[in-house]
Amino acid sequence: MIDLYTAATPNGWKVSIALEEMDLPYTLRQIDLSSGAQKEPWFTAINPNGRIPAIVDRANGEFAVFESGAILLYLAEKTGKLMPADEKGRSRVVQWLMFQMGGIGPMMGQANVFTRYFPEHLPAAIERYRRECRRLFEVLDGHLANHEYLAGDYSIADIANWSWVHTHEWPGIDVAGLDNLQRWVAAIAARPAVQRGIVSPARQENPEEQIARARAMLA
Amino acid sequence: MIDLYTAATPNGWKVSIALEEMDLPYTLRQIDLSSGAQKEPWFTAINPNGRIPAIVDRANGEFAVFESGAILLYLAEKTGKLMPADEKGRSRVVQWLMFQMGGIGPMMGQANVFTRYFPEHLPAAIERYRRECRRLFEVLDGHLANHEYLAGDYSIADIANWSWVHTHEWPGIDVAGLDNLQRWVAAIAARPAVQRGIVSPARQENPEEQIARARAMLA
Repeated sequence: MIDLYTAATPNGWKVSIALEEMDLPYTLRQIDLSSGAQKEPWFTAINPNGRIPAIVDRANGEFAVFESGAILLYLAEKTGKLMPADEKGRSRVVQWLMFQMGGIGPMMGQANVFTRYFPEHLPAAIERYRRECRRLFEVLDGHLANHEYLAGDYSIADIANWSWVHTHEWPGIDVAGLDNLQRWVAAIAARPAVQRGIVSPARQENPEEQIARARAMLA
Repeated sequence: MIDLYTAATPNGWKVSIALEEMDLPYTLRQIDLSSGAQKEPWFTAINPNGRIPAIVDRANGEFAVFESGAILLYLAEKTGKLMPADEKGRSRVVQWLMFQMGGIGPMMGQANVFTRYFPEHLPAAIERYRRECRRLFEVLDGHLANHEYLAGDYSIADIANWSWVHTHEWPGIDVAGLDNLQRWVAAIAARPAVQRGIVSPARQENPEEQIARARAMLA
């Protein structure tokens, strides 16, 4: 059994969706980010970075894994699911997973901060991150013009990118004209395991509470 | 033989250092970022994101790999070097590699932008990124208090993080009091392969030219 420490955020959804897709039983251990539980010593012993998500694999000597991208790779290797076994196929999945970890995730995260949470209104910073996110979306759209999914069959690379991209309205990133991206977003959203994963855990905050919590964490 | 498309940047150094450490022969193909070569069709066929570094493994059917973190994993698997073979040891390396890909790299990158290149002077943005980088450095420092390297023996996780962390003066991130981090930075800097890797390619810009080029790329 796997313990999943998480919250209703894009990085959290990556792992809950993957667990649902892989049909792996897990215990949901919801972290109340506004209480600061993720900074307490019992949790930083699991993830020294004090962030969600993290897992503890009880069936593998209480092995702890932090960083959403590392959890996805661990689970794919553990189950043999959602990633090819051959060297090139694996690498293609890892490449698009890294594109999300180093690009889509951090840049959409900064777009969220300056659009929704930052104490100062900085139009130039908002514009910078919206523009960079649009550029990254265009890279995905161009690739998806000739590929049904990002790296061969549906994989952890799709789950990682989708978990962020489908939230594009929150930071105000325009997806007009990105028809391939929109087709891919809709196809993944229709998967039953994805629909289960994005409500595991259920969101307990309304948008105003989410903004207030994120602002408090920035202070 | 491996073709390495790169430039003298932290993400580029990750791969040139790894190739030197692994004693893998490679052809250095320097990309002039100021000319926009990385956006030309011949290059986006290798890396659709139009960024350095990228490799093409001529000995493996011209296989192209983009994203520095994916290149490091590909090379470690290809050679069996700088990453353990066992499941848990591998995962620990991947976790600290992802910490760099999703945290240290993007946050130091944003600190560089607002400190050195952004057209507007935004003190609140500079402060935000310096503070987040200091927090991430403290996570590394705390871990290195009880570990010589980040994940067992010296690995691709150390190379990835070091390639960014050792540049802390450029964005003005304070490392005072982070004795474990400083010990680790110095130990890696002393490695002959690292000293070869960080001048492959040699930096051709002086700081003023670097700033001018980065500003032009933001515009």
